Amino acid sequence: MKSKFYLGIDVGGSRIKAVLVKDKQIIRSKTEDSPNNLKGLLNVIVKIKDELTVGIDQMEIGGIGFSLAGTLDIKREIMLNSPNIKYLNNQPIKRLLEKKLKTYPIKLEHDVHCFLLAEKERGLAKNLKNVFYLTLGTGIGGALMVDGQIVFGAHGSAGEVGHMIIKLKIKNKKLKIDETLDLEELAANKFIKKCLGVGSIEAERRARAGDKKAREIFVQLGRNLGVGIANIINIFDPEAIILNGGIAEAKEFILSGIKEGIEKFVVSPAAKKTKILFSTLGLYAGSLGAALLFEK
Amino acid sequence: MKSKFYLGIDVGGSRIKAVLVKDKQIIRSKTEDSPNNLKGLLNVIVKIKDELTVGIDQMEIGGIGFSLAGTLDIKREIMLNSPNIKYLNNQPIKRLLEKKLKTYPIKLEHDVHCFLLAEKERGLAKNLKNVFYLTLGTGIGGALMVDGQIVFGAHGSAGEVGHMIIKLKIKNKKLKIDETLDLEELAANKFIKKCLGVGSIEAERRARAGDKKAREIFVQLGRNLGVGIANIINIFDPEAIILNGGIAEAKEFILSGIKEGIEKFVVSPAAKKTKILFSTLGLYAGSLGAALLFEK
Repeated sequence: MKSKFYLGIDVGGSRIKAVLVKDKQIIRSKTEDSPNNLKGLLNVIVKIKDELTVGIDQMEIGGIGFSLAGTLDIKREIMLNSPNIKYLNNQPIKRLLEKKLKTYPIKLEHDVHCFLLAEKERGLAKNLKNVFYLTLGTGIGGALMVDGQIVFGAHGSAGEVGHMIIKLKIKNKKLKIDETLDLEELAANKFIKKCLGVGSIEAERRARAGDKKAREIFVQLGRNLGVGIANIINIFDPEAIILNGGIAEAKEFILSGIKEGIEKFVVSPAAKKTKILFSTLGLYAGSLGAALLFEK
Repeated sequence: MKSKFYLGIDVGGSRIKAVLVKDKQIIRSKTEDSPNNLKGLLNVIVKIKDELTVGIDQMEIGGIGFSLAGTLDIKREIMLNSPNIKYLNNQPIKRLLEKKLKTYPIKLEHDVHCFLLAEKERGLAKNLKNVFYLTLGTGIGGALMVDGQIVFGAHGSAGEVGHMIIKLKIKNKKLKIDETLDLEELAANKFIKKCLGVGSIEAERRARAGDKKAREIFVQLGRNLGVGIANIINIFDPEAIILNGGIAEAKEFILSGIKEGIEKFVVSPAAKKTKILFSTLGLYAGSLGAALLFEK
């Protein structure tokens, strides 16, 4: 049987990245700015689909996969909570897309699951069986692969590691939990913004230019992240942790802190050797994974 | 083919609990005090084996499984770190047992994995696919089942949830991590001892007698545990958390705090409904699981 083409569309808060895939390879790609309303978004998606499939018979297209940030319902039909594209919240997004795109089969998935799927088929996770994937940006997303299978969880929400509480403040006298901070607050953009007053791109620029303060903040972010990663390693014992996203770009500044955390807090001597890998799939990782939803 | 008998021996710090199992059912059981040296331990194991197999042909015995607390090497042959039976540390325990028990096939496994295996075959996890198991005692042990399979991890140490850091103290000026507390320090016997000056059995007795302070400590322990369990639910999204061990006996005092933590810190609305179950397998859960190592 002749292999089909698949479209993968990664719907992000600022950009929509799309690819046409055949035999698990990217054939064409396209990026558009994200519209600020639902109607505009649906129109841009149709436009992208038309442009990427120019000259290809409709019968040869096996489906369109979507990579979305935020929480989807377990059937992958309704967007429950989109952190970056508020107008998607509670929308029956699958039905709307089906109506707009007509004959094409459609699949929706969390972006982190798409990222990990891309790593499994075409990236760093290709020859691994147990992997934890972390995307470090505005927030922190997570996904996990056990015995070669991506784990979705009983309610479709496995991997929500950004909200792992790693800082708990307890006033000893009253024995009450007063304050908690999660990994996202200590190891994503928020942390840099709080400490340095600028975003991660500017912070990284400063660190590269030799700014001592900016470098220190990244090292500390790496240490905080190291605590979270050590927790993950202790619980899962994966072969590798794969990192991606804006903050992972500052690899050389965060890696020492991560390794410190692992050395200090991972219990099993063998698991201390868990590999820390940085994704090389680049801009189209999410859209590639979305296209691969039909071939996993 | 006629089904075989299997022996399961749970080697604990104070007691050795053993069962004879056929068709996944306990046929005979026996408990002995734990000797304080290796030679004594090996002799007691032979004695238990002889007593439990009286009248049974040696050919009908399929093997002897051992449930052990602490870290085993990945091949399950050497005890790397036994918290309760120090004289086992770094001993090639499998070889020693094989020498002593001769013709019988032997398997060794972490006690939490045996507990979970027993739950999977004969207990609360029987009809579940995704489960996280926690044993709350002197320390906290953990084990996980994904899609019906117990996860051992890349280095055989998956489930080490007792060392999950949930309290991180950072002095903001120097941005250094000053102090960390893990789940074990906040939700196991240690916590009760620190707050109340007595062990969990006495604390539970006091709580049942109406002692307000003792009850408060259990509620707070439940809250701390709730933070850890919320982290686990966010990462794994299991159908159920199964609790066992001494602290789980105080079920009615810790449950409200656990539920509070889940309500507050679990992100997915669906996952907030994850069941919290208390094991009913009792004294021989570990030894039953050890015997089942041959039939999983």
